[in-house]
Amino acid sequence: MYGIRNLREKLDAGALGRQMYELLERLYPICRSITGEGFRETQRIVAEHVRGLELRGVPSGTQCFDWIVPKEWNIRDAYVKAPSGEKVIDFRKSNLHVLNYSVPVRAKLTLAELDKHLYTLPEQPSWIPYRTSYYKEDWGFCLAHDDYRKLEDGVYEVVIDSTLEDGDLNYGECLLLGESSREVLLSCHACHPSLCNDNLSGIVVSTFLAKLLADTPTRYSHRFVWIPGGIGSVVWMSQNQERLWRIAHGLVLTCLGDPGNFTYKKSRRGDAEIDRAVQNVLRQTGDDFAVLEFSPYGYDERNYGSQKFDLPVGSLTRSTHEGFAGYHSSADDLSLVRPEALGDSLLTYLAVLDVLENNGRYRNRIPEAEPQLGRRGLYGMQGGLQKRERLEMALLWVMNFSDGEHSLLEISDRSGYSFELISDAAGKLLEHGLLERWERDDG
Amino acid sequence: MYGIRNLREKLDAGALGRQMYELLERLYPICRSITGEGFRETQRIVAEHVRGLELRGVPSGTQCFDWIVPKEWNIRDAYVKAPSGEKVIDFRKSNLHVLNYSVPVRAKLTLAELDKHLYTLPEQPSWIPYRTSYYKEDWGFCLAHDDYRKLEDGVYEVVIDSTLEDGDLNYGECLLLGESSREVLLSCHACHPSLCNDNLSGIVVSTFLAKLLADTPTRYSHRFVWIPGGIGSVVWMSQNQERLWRIAHGLVLTCLGDPGNFTYKKSRRGDAEIDRAVQNVLRQTGDDFAVLEFSPYGYDERNYGSQKFDLPVGSLTRSTHEGFAGYHSSADDLSLVRPEALGDSLLTYLAVLDVLENNGRYRNRIPEAEPQLGRRGLYGMQGGLQKRERLEMALLWVMNFSDGEHSLLEISDRSGYSFELISDAAGKLLEHGLLERWERDDG
Amino acid sequence: MYGIRNLREKLDAGALGRQMYELLERLYPICRSITGEGFRETQRIVAEHVRGLELRGVPSGTQCFDWIVPKEWNIRDAYVKAPSGEKVIDFRKSNLHVLNYSVPVRAKLTLAELDKHLYTLPEQPSWIPYRTSYYKEDWGFCLAHDDYRKLEDGVYEVVIDSTLEDGDLNYGECLLLGESSREVLLSCHACHPSLCNDNLSGIVVSTFLAKLLADTPTRYSHRFVWIPGGIGSVVWMSQNQERLWRIAHGLVLTCLGDPGNFTYKKSRRGDAEIDRAVQNVLRQTGDDFAVLEFSPYGYDERNYGSQKFDLPVGSLTRSTHEGFAGYHSSADDLSLVRPEALGDSLLTYLAVLDVLENNGRYRNRIPEAEPQLGRRGLYGMQGGLQKRERLEMALLWVMNFSDGEHSLLEISDRSGYSFELISDAAGKLLEHGLLERWERDDG
Repeated sequence: MYGIRNLREKLDAGALGRQMYELLERLYPICRSITGEGFRETQRIVAEHVRGLELRGVPSGTQCFDWIVPKEWNIRDAYVKAPSGEKVIDFRKSNLHVLNYSVPVRAKLTLAELDKHLYTLPEQPSWIPYRTSYYKEDWGFCLAHDDYRKLEDGVYEVVIDSTLEDGDLNYGECLLLGESSREVLLSCHACHPSLCNDNLSGIVVSTFLAKLLADTPTRYSHRFVWIPGGIGSVVWMSQNQERLWRIAHGLVLTCLGDPGNFTYKKSRRGDAEIDRAVQNVLRQTGDDFAVLEFSPYGYDERNYGSQKFDLPVGSLTRSTHEGFAGYHSSADDLSLVRPEALGDSLLTYLAVLDVLENNGRYRNRIPEAEPQLGRRGLYGMQGGLQKRERLEMALLWVMNFSDGEHSLLEISDRSGYSFELISDAAGKLLEHGLLERWERDDG
Repeated sequence: MYGIRNLREKLDAGALGRQMYELLERLYPICRSITGEGFRETQRIVAEHVRGLELRGVPSGTQCFDWIVPKEWNIRDAYVKAPSGEKVIDFRKSNLHVLNYSVPVRAKLTLAELDKHLYTLPEQPSWIPYRTSYYKEDWGFCLAHDDYRKLEDGVYEVVIDSTLEDGDLNYGECLLLGESSREVLLSCHACHPSLCNDNLSGIVVSTFLAKLLADTPTRYSHRFVWIPGGIGSVVWMSQNQERLWRIAHGLVLTCLGDPGNFTYKKSRRGDAEIDRAVQNVLRQTGDDFAVLEFSPYGYDERNYGSQKFDLPVGSLTRSTHEGFAGYHSSADDLSLVRPEALGDSLLTYLAVLDVLENNGRYRNRIPEAEPQLGRRGLYGMQGGLQKRERLEMALLWVMNFSDGEHSLLEISDRSGYSFELISDAAGKLLEHGLLERWERDDG
Repeated sequence: MYGIRNLREKLDAGALGRQMYELLERLYPICRSITGEGFRETQRIVAEHVRGLELRGVPSGTQCFDWIVPKEWNIRDAYVKAPSGEKVIDFRKSNLHVLNYSVPVRAKLTLAELDKHLYTLPEQPSWIPYRTSYYKEDWGFCLAHDDYRKLEDGVYEVVIDSTLEDGDLNYGECLLLGESSREVLLSCHACHPSLCNDNLSGIVVSTFLAKLLADTPTRYSHRFVWIPGGIGSVVWMSQNQERLWRIAHGLVLTCLGDPGNFTYKKSRRGDAEIDRAVQNVLRQTGDDFAVLEFSPYGYDERNYGSQKFDLPVGSLTRSTHEGFAGYHSSADDLSLVRPEALGDSLLTYLAVLDVLENNGRYRNRIPEAEPQLGRRGLYGMQGGLQKRERLEMALLWVMNFSDGEHSLLEISDRSGYSFELISDAAGKLLEHGLLERWERDDG
């Protein structure tokens, strides 16, 4: 089951990083929201890369657990004209300027009246904040505090040319079948407007993972979803309640383009196989990384880790939503994201998927004492050396601890040798009949 | 069940600290022992503050597990006159001068003969040590080493005007009934003569807790005992064997007046609810504190933590008996204890009792995914913010982890949010029907 | 069961260290291998000290689990003569010069042809490496890299006067019967030629332990084996499969003569009684020491810790095979080993064996509260002291935690008091009827 490993070894991460960055540049200007045309347009572009991606729709008003699918929001234009006639706030310059989900407005207002609908970041006066009002009908504009301070008294013309009507909540979904019906869930939110690291980086890494895995034979099936954040995971879980037991492992993808080190937020279970797999891979990188315990706040892992379903879904990001300065503002722009970081994130995800693919439990067929590896060509014939080859050591570890209980991942963790080396060792021992497959969680 | 919380929020800790200090000043001169008039006089003064306090008596000779209640000791006077006729040791100046439980003596002795009955602290030459001989008939005097060195040869007149006769071993007891018959035990030793931090600080904090709780509605019943140290807990447990199962939690109070940081010595169980409650409260103070594992030495927790009954009783002190310099000497005087420290100790005990009152397990009634808190007015309607309100976070934590297994205390520990905030959040969720009571250990 | 403790207290570690060093000097020149006369000669000398030592033999060709006993190797002489006629490599100067298990050779070779059979340590140019080829027929010479660089072109005369024929694989074994048929296994490899710390130090400490224990009454039986490393433990386990269950605890002895601090490598179980006993003893020394997790590489613990038998056998050494510079080279010579280190190692092993002898579980017969130790003469009658005697504290610890579950070793670990003090306290409490024996794992 080395499809992903072979794929990974042949990849040109530099070239892929640049391709992902190009896709991200193309998606950047689109005004996305949790519903509407911007979301669908994004998914159509993703579908150019992902064969078999299906765009699903759930009608407004559908009850999903405790939530009701909201009306669909679309926007064509929005601006504020100063008393001088100048457009001082213009949706066409940045879609962040509009409070996302603003109801339509056409009005003339004094500055004092307008002021109640304006949002700024006084501590970061040059950034436009990103604000939403999905669940309460409202309208508003977001702008740089520097620009806000320049507004003069007088009557302003306010236009928001939007609609809020019955329609659909959409999400993109793609299932790549493997040998087993057990699935690895790869989920990203795709509902933020022009924000690069939070949202777009996850979308493009997810897209390229799906593209690459489409032609790769795997053990697990891989399910990709591009959903509106928060409500999207509620809706998807609600629509798929009968099938959720198939999710063997999962990750939430976002914030994968900044140059920071990796952060892993554990699944609610805390010691699920995905939790150990990600940490195993990150340890092998040699770089620092952070591991956070699960908390019921953050991205969609908060819903996947609900009490009832408690899906083993963690979140592997670079910076976290609390960890980068430009979060949810115009500072989360194209300059924050780097092609190399995207490429490295892609490779790291593939390494994690490879661990999941090849993990398993085996049984030593000669459990009484060490076998004579030398006569099988698996161990150097000269004795007395202070150190043995890494593979020789890995063979000893796999033999000793393959008792049907320790998985290869656990043997890798315990020995400190990489999962790749440990699984290679297991492969050689299988070939020589020294090991037998015990249990593979193929569902 | 916010009786204690409401009480605590209204307290004037400064004023209460001063009142406790005044009571301590009043109790200071009394010559207490494990039996006798001094112990009873102390309890009569405590009873002025504690409605319903009962003074119990167990006769000399009563078998209590492995122990036998000793004879009752009383003392009127004691002194040593030098050859010059001067009283060089005088019980009326400090009751520490007499070896506690000294049998009566009237004799003339050479210095060499007297010397075998004298106790000093050579390393702290100005302090009078505190020594006892409860279980072996003996007599003696304790004095400052500086004074000891001035004693000249010659014949000394020695008088100890004491009695050691059949009588009672007493203890004070007060039960404040709550809704439940399950009890919180609050125990302090009240048998030391003029020692302030070790003994009196525990007595006065205990007295004021009992006084304040007398008018406070509570879930648990609260049982206060003022006992002779060591044998007192043996006797009390022996007299109450049938009822010990009612003790749900307990604390031993002493060393609560010095200005040091808190120290918590765990119950024998080590992870009882009281152990977690105290640590939770101390973490919220933001100050350093020490946590010690249980050891079968110290104060009465050593007997409460006996093998058979293994009561969940820890000890929350400021300094420990090993930790302050003046321990068991005349240096443990009025200057060591500060009103502010007494007030802070009282508040901290109330915070612990509040955790016990309000801890419990709940069940999320919408376990499939996060509920829509916004439409219930429990969550801000505007999205995109980097940080949410602390209460909003607490609501998410309580919802996600209220699965009938995690208690509010565990959710507070895990989330890092204060127990008060977490229990407030639980209250709001109960009101909105999002949570249901699962199990409250009401016995 | 204080046989070992009494023995240990009377020992003159200095004198024994010197005697062990003398034995080591005598064994040093012998050319040992995993089979052959050198191994047997070594065991005959060991037998001069160890009454009842039996030399076992297992014929070549015997199948032992996955291994086959190899042919027996013997060597009389070996050298290489330079074109000048000078012996530039001479087995009689150091038996390390010959690749151990070299097949017989008599040939004239050019330097280029000879070169393929020469082994050096370029990074340590003055040391002769130790190399073997037990399982592949080959020949070779080992020499200092400095000498190697002086070899000139020309034709060399090569002689290895060895035999490789059917014979025996031998090992020495000695069982000292105790009260119980349960055994403590003490195993060392005795197959290395002139190497002092790795091999000889273990042999001599093992020899003296066996000599001293021969006249000491013990609870456990003690089984000593001197085996060829690696294959020896496979063969021994294979020959004793039916009896392996008797091994209650075990240690592998080697690297016990260097001046480094102790290193303990845990058994595969990781928390076996032997693991806790060794760490308990090392903590009491007050010196730093290292504890390593089990790994399936190293000395014979790798086979004892096989998956099927999983014997609780750790390895207590000073330096490890990875930890000392001269490992497997001529630098592991008489100067590396010190008599004091050998003596200290012996004492430390005896301390560990004493813990095993005296460990056990007891039951407190007065579990309701602390007993009155004072009236039994076990506790000072004067009260008020800040510190009690160490034995008094130990008595309290043993009483409180002797519940049939906590062993004395666990009580020692938990209290921080030495096992010796804790077991003395248990002895006193037994005498006074306060404790009763609960379970002693006597098999």
